[in-house]
Amino acid sequence: MSLQEQLKDRLKEMEPQIISWRRHLHQYPELSFHEEKTPQMIAEILEGLNFDEIRTGVGGRGVVGVLRGSRPGAVVALRADFDALPIQDQKEVTYKSKVPGVMHACGHDAHTSQLLGLASVLANHRDQFAGEIRFIFQHAEEESPGGAIQMTQDGAVDGVDAIFGVHLWSMLPVGNVYISPGPIMASIDDFVIEVKGRGGHGAIPDETIDSIVVGSQIVGALQTIASRNVSPMNSVVVTVGTFHGGDNNNVIADSCRLTGTVRTFLPEVRDRAEERLTEIAKGTAAMMGASAEVRYIRDYPAVINSEKEAELAREAALAAFGEERVLPMKPLMGGEDFSYYLGKVPGAFFFVGAGNLEKLAEYPHHHPRFDIDEDAMLIAGELLGRTALHFLEKHQS
Amino acid sequence: MSLQEQLKDRLKEMEPQIISWRRHLHQYPELSFHEEKTPQMIAEILEGLNFDEIRTGVGGRGVVGVLRGSRPGAVVALRADFDALPIQDQKEVTYKSKVPGVMHACGHDAHTSQLLGLASVLANHRDQFAGEIRFIFQHAEEESPGGAIQMTQDGAVDGVDAIFGVHLWSMLPVGNVYISPGPIMASIDDFVIEVKGRGGHGAIPDETIDSIVVGSQIVGALQTIASRNVSPMNSVVVTVGTFHGGDNNNVIADSCRLTGTVRTFLPEVRDRAEERLTEIAKGTAAMMGASAEVRYIRDYPAVINSEKEAELAREAALAAFGEERVLPMKPLMGGEDFSYYLGKVPGAFFFVGAGNLEKLAEYPHHHPRFDIDEDAMLIAGELLGRTALHFLEKHQS
Amino acid sequence: MSLQEQLKDRLKEMEPQIISWRRHLHQYPELSFHEEKTPQMIAEILEGLNFDEIRTGVGGRGVVGVLRGSRPGAVVALRADFDALPIQDQKEVTYKSKVPGVMHACGHDAHTSQLLGLASVLANHRDQFAGEIRFIFQHAEEESPGGAIQMTQDGAVDGVDAIFGVHLWSMLPVGNVYISPGPIMASIDDFVIEVKGRGGHGAIPDETIDSIVVGSQIVGALQTIASRNVSPMNSVVVTVGTFHGGDNNNVIADSCRLTGTVRTFLPEVRDRAEERLTEIAKGTAAMMGASAEVRYIRDYPAVINSEKEAELAREAALAAFGEERVLPMKPLMGGEDFSYYLGKVPGAFFFVGAGNLEKLAEYPHHHPRFDIDEDAMLIAGELLGRTALHFLEKHQS
Amino acid sequence: MSLQEQLKDRLKEMEPQIISWRRHLHQYPELSFHEEKTPQMIAEILEGLNFDEIRTGVGGRGVVGVLRGSRPGAVVALRADFDALPIQDQKEVTYKSKVPGVMHACGHDAHTSQLLGLASVLANHRDQFAGEIRFIFQHAEEESPGGAIQMTQDGAVDGVDAIFGVHLWSMLPVGNVYISPGPIMASIDDFVIEVKGRGGHGAIPDETIDSIVVGSQIVGALQTIASRNVSPMNSVVVTVGTFHGGDNNNVIADSCRLTGTVRTFLPEVRDRAEERLTEIAKGTAAMMGASAEVRYIRDYPAVINSEKEAELAREAALAAFGEERVLPMKPLMGGEDFSYYLGKVPGAFFFVGAGNLEKLAEYPHHHPRFDIDEDAMLIAGELLGRTALHFLEKHQS
Repeated sequence: MSLQEQLKDRLKEMEPQIISWRRHLHQYPELSFHEEKTPQMIAEILEGLNFDEIRTGVGGRGVVGVLRGSRPGAVVALRADFDALPIQDQKEVTYKSKVPGVMHACGHDAHTSQLLGLASVLANHRDQFAGEIRFIFQHAEEESPGGAIQMTQDGAVDGVDAIFGVHLWSMLPVGNVYISPGPIMASIDDFVIEVKGRGGHGAIPDETIDSIVVGSQIVGALQTIASRNVSPMNSVVVTVGTFHGGDNNNVIADSCRLTGTVRTFLPEVRDRAEERLTEIAKGTAAMMGASAEVRYIRDYPAVINSEKEAELAREAALAAFGEERVLPMKPLMGGEDFSYYLGKVPGAFFFVGAGNLEKLAEYPHHHPRFDIDEDAMLIAGELLGRTALHFLEKHQS
Repeated sequence: MSLQEQLKDRLKEMEPQIISWRRHLHQYPELSFHEEKTPQMIAEILEGLNFDEIRTGVGGRGVVGVLRGSRPGAVVALRADFDALPIQDQKEVTYKSKVPGVMHACGHDAHTSQLLGLASVLANHRDQFAGEIRFIFQHAEEESPGGAIQMTQDGAVDGVDAIFGVHLWSMLPVGNVYISPGPIMASIDDFVIEVKGRGGHGAIPDETIDSIVVGSQIVGALQTIASRNVSPMNSVVVTVGTFHGGDNNNVIADSCRLTGTVRTFLPEVRDRAEERLTEIAKGTAAMMGASAEVRYIRDYPAVINSEKEAELAREAALAAFGEERVLPMKPLMGGEDFSYYLGKVPGAFFFVGAGNLEKLAEYPHHHPRFDIDEDAMLIAGELLGRTALHFLEKHQS
Repeated sequence: MSLQEQLKDRLKEMEPQIISWRRHLHQYPELSFHEEKTPQMIAEILEGLNFDEIRTGVGGRGVVGVLRGSRPGAVVALRADFDALPIQDQKEVTYKSKVPGVMHACGHDAHTSQLLGLASVLANHRDQFAGEIRFIFQHAEEESPGGAIQMTQDGAVDGVDAIFGVHLWSMLPVGNVYISPGPIMASIDDFVIEVKGRGGHGAIPDETIDSIVVGSQIVGALQTIASRNVSPMNSVVVTVGTFHGGDNNNVIADSCRLTGTVRTFLPEVRDRAEERLTEIAKGTAAMMGASAEVRYIRDYPAVINSEKEAELAREAALAAFGEERVLPMKPLMGGEDFSYYLGKVPGAFFFVGAGNLEKLAEYPHHHPRFDIDEDAMLIAGELLGRTALHFLEKHQS
Repeated sequence: MSLQEQLKDRLKEMEPQIISWRRHLHQYPELSFHEEKTPQMIAEILEGLNFDEIRTGVGGRGVVGVLRGSRPGAVVALRADFDALPIQDQKEVTYKSKVPGVMHACGHDAHTSQLLGLASVLANHRDQFAGEIRFIFQHAEEESPGGAIQMTQDGAVDGVDAIFGVHLWSMLPVGNVYISPGPIMASIDDFVIEVKGRGGHGAIPDETIDSIVVGSQIVGALQTIASRNVSPMNSVVVTVGTFHGGDNNNVIADSCRLTGTVRTFLPEVRDRAEERLTEIAKGTAAMMGASAEVRYIRDYPAVINSEKEAELAREAALAAFGEERVLPMKPLMGGEDFSYYLGKVPGAFFFVGAGNLEKLAEYPHHHPRFDIDEDAMLIAGELLGRTALHFLEKHQS
């Protein structure tokens, strides 16, 4: 029986430990960029597993551990994030957060615990794989610019051939895994457009430049980004979420302010959207005799899975869970800084169902009653483990 | 020498009294719909002049006095308003307001005083004119719906053949009078458009109805009222003064609210503007799957001088002041409830320059340092008196 | 009895001659810039009247004759135009045009004849006025750039203190004259906007620049000229009369072409409209990545009557026709090159009713059945004559 | 060696015959709905192969042949179309079309020939598969509404479990096959919007309803279908390809006409686009006082491959051609009536590279010099054969 085939059982043996770790982390959550105890605990566990290499403080607060197989081979990385959110835990469970106003409301505690569980198993079977498995424990995913950009800058994925990661998802049923090639999470950009006209008496428009008319024209023209500037085969959203101008019904407003969000999956689409948004806002204002200042703030880039790595993961998943439980994933418009790793090396990011009404794991992420079905941790561990081993096997030298 | 020709001298003799009245009223201003002492003083003066008829409490707080000439004839009315504003007087003059926060900042004290002066003169020369001169002292011009509508409903202009009125104007130089036929002050309407869409996630527009996009389309389409729906020979302004929608840049706004003002001179243009504004707001919203609630509030109608009465007044003015000092008047976009009298009977409304930098009469109306050159009162009195007498002369039976 | 008071009778004596001239000209109409016989006939008549000065070929084909009064004084000019139109006369009258496809369908034959009649009368009474009366007979009014610009360049109004002119108008009833100060006929400009985008497959908008979307945005933004850029007290029309783009429903159009007209009364409004139209077209195109070429062609400027000269003419008209027959004139959106004279000297342009259903004078100008009530010629002559004499009287040295 | 593994060699043996059939059809092309000899030839060949069942005249001119395996099982259908185009063949080859103005310029001759070749092979191996293979030869794919809708109405796919089809593609290199799940060819709809306003003088907009302004607003509002009404994850194109209105620059256009195309992949998106387009056109027109007539013409629906059948075909293809030659396919915006079969039963449609510069197979489809590399026929045959056999194997009872 291959190591891949043994994984489920080996992880099952680790389950109490994994749950224990997770519940400990859940009770002592740490905010992004303020993680101290968590990375320390991770490093200690890896040391106890006799890892071949352990780096702490990577990119600030990250931990990277390396397991080397018996023979040389490829390098595959697995990533888990470990920061919590500024949310007050409202669940009634024994492992409820002990830190007021801070909570693992997105499942990062489970991400980390399942990966530690997998590390434990694989540390005992270094003779059964070739190459290297790198475990990346990342801080600060929740706060842009996050930990991933720091860790990649600090070499976390240098020399890596492929990277994989998962997100447990309480809105999807436990038992299933969701894998698709291509775009899987959007890039999220914010923008602010300040239109400056020239205010004046509501009855004397010819002595003014009506900023509300200009702002309205900008809103109209922005619709053409989706309709004309981006391929219908690609996705883009340009939303003006707020429009505020004017204090008095019979005074022409001196200025107005529009804010919004842009979501895309492809870098070239993102560039095009930013370029067009800026041109439209400034050009429309200029055409009307006004001016527009545009601030365009890029948050995380899109997470785009490599075709081959996603397919390879899908093969590993099919072997582990069977066709009925391996499903395609519709891209989500939320963001993830896993994208920074994929900017450096190929790889893929998956979703693992963690919802279960019976276990009250039914609240959306970032909800004060958010919880997961802990069974999802073994599934996630097996998925990542099988994928890593399958990759190494396929890329033997 | 005719009475018309004597007027200037007779008024000059009254000047100390007129100034005294004006300064008294200036020190004891009363707010719209709260006038008590002012109408009482007016009525007493008219009684002292042995008026043929005096009605008080007309339409609430107005005073109407009648002088009958020696022979039967036409009926001409002259109107002055007497309410003050909720403004703190900041002038440094001996006749400064003694009522905190209340001030004659629009010159109504002077309107009333000059008309009392004229009444005094004419009361002594009833033998020299035919017909009847009706003196209308009006409360509450500053607060819509004002005193004029009440007084007309209470019969103030019943039986009147023509009515005339003046406004002293500190932004025009003392010495000149300004008379034009046709529209002279605009109708002023307010509107509120509440657009109701369906809010939602900024990245999922297809599940929402974006109220900001709808509001922007409405602003755009409203421009066609001026450009396409109203004759280029007529005036209309449709201004959206405020546009407010949305709380969050990445949430599609459930609703937005537009407020604005509509200014017109002609009733048919006013009707058309209201009709089109409503159709555009509701139609655009419906077309986008949203809904719009429109509130359209009509304030004072436009003041539109009758051709003949304006011409007649101009003739009287030319005789009094000479060609150099009788000028045409560009319509003002402000409002006046003199329009309600003109809705009942023909007439005209003039402007009398009252500005004088040397006398510090240089501030705009409604300014806390507003003042007039008191010389303007004699000019206003002569203009009204001559016009009334000229009218009666022309309309002798 | 003054000369002014005698005018009606003296013109009445000339009536058969005036009608004869008019019917002769009506039968032998000459197109703009091709007038030969007409100016020759005019010059001969003036010679026969022993004019003090006669210039022919003024500005090409115009005729200018001078009558000097017995004493020195001001110089007043009267103008009549004499060109015909390329229209086939379809009337059934004895004086029907004998020139195929050419017709006096705008009344210029009558303009010239009545002025010749007036010239005949005044030539016999040079002792009764001071100063100089200049008779300007103009070619080519119908074709821009017309004869007025040439004649003014050739000195036709040098030294003139005021100029007056009339237009007979078949849409207004004979008997009345129409006089107003200020703008009386519009400036007429044409424009062409060529939008150049980048065509392509209808299903691949992102590889194109959709010129129809750009053209539509331009049409929308042009509405703001009337709604926001020009005072509501002034008139402006910006009409896009044609919009043509695209050959195929599933191909994105490479370019589109918009043509239209701009009408204004005031030079500053005209300038503003041209400026804004150009900015809007070019700015909108640029903002969308396209380009727009704008051709703006200025035809005749607006005819704007001087306040004083219009008033003076009104006084003269009141004396001649009485209050009931002297009416104000609503500005017309048509053009007239009388504006070029008013660009040099003060003056006014009037309308004289020439319509009469009983005499079949009921068709609009430029209609193949157009005709006038010939009685209008005496009225026009009297109006111009009285105005000229009144002016000279008022401006005696 | 399984039948699947033998297929390549068996088809290779048939190659001369397949090429001969193809070249014969190429010389005698028949237009859509006018096919006579082609279905007759197909039927004769199937008869010669001793097919278990042959229906001719299916849905008009289609041919359906059935091969039954040795044991009961599932029913899989394979489809080839056989109509030609009204294009003059401009190639210089021995098998050039002999019918003037008619040409197989889209490769349907090859579609049919390769499927006949596959039929020949499988007819000889009925013992080696379970179930039934149905061969559908379809007329009139090129002309909407095409043969597929007729054949499905006539029972062509009744009882079928899955259907597969291919398109040879000269713009993709011979040797490769292109398979993807989901939308693969767009639905193509046309629309015509007739805006009816009220024409009039270019200077009197208030007496008109300006159809060009209305049309422009419609163009603007249509942009919101892509930007707001359809999920960013789905594809939609709404293009206004032509905009024509107005004859004269100074006349307001009575009406204008917009035509365009709508492309979508999902039926619900198609419905939404049609619904919104109609609402926007009619609602905008109504809001402006105009009216709009909308004609929306649905051409073929989108071709959407079933997930499972596409995956199954991919497995078969990988076994046949290896990973390097089995590629994903980007959806094409062109249409295919294969969509009607997929409206009834699951299945998938693939592309087979047929381009080869050396063999002059380099022109796009519908080009007068269009040709294919005939090697593509064996590849198409093997792909369809392997897919059919793999499907039957997987769905054995």
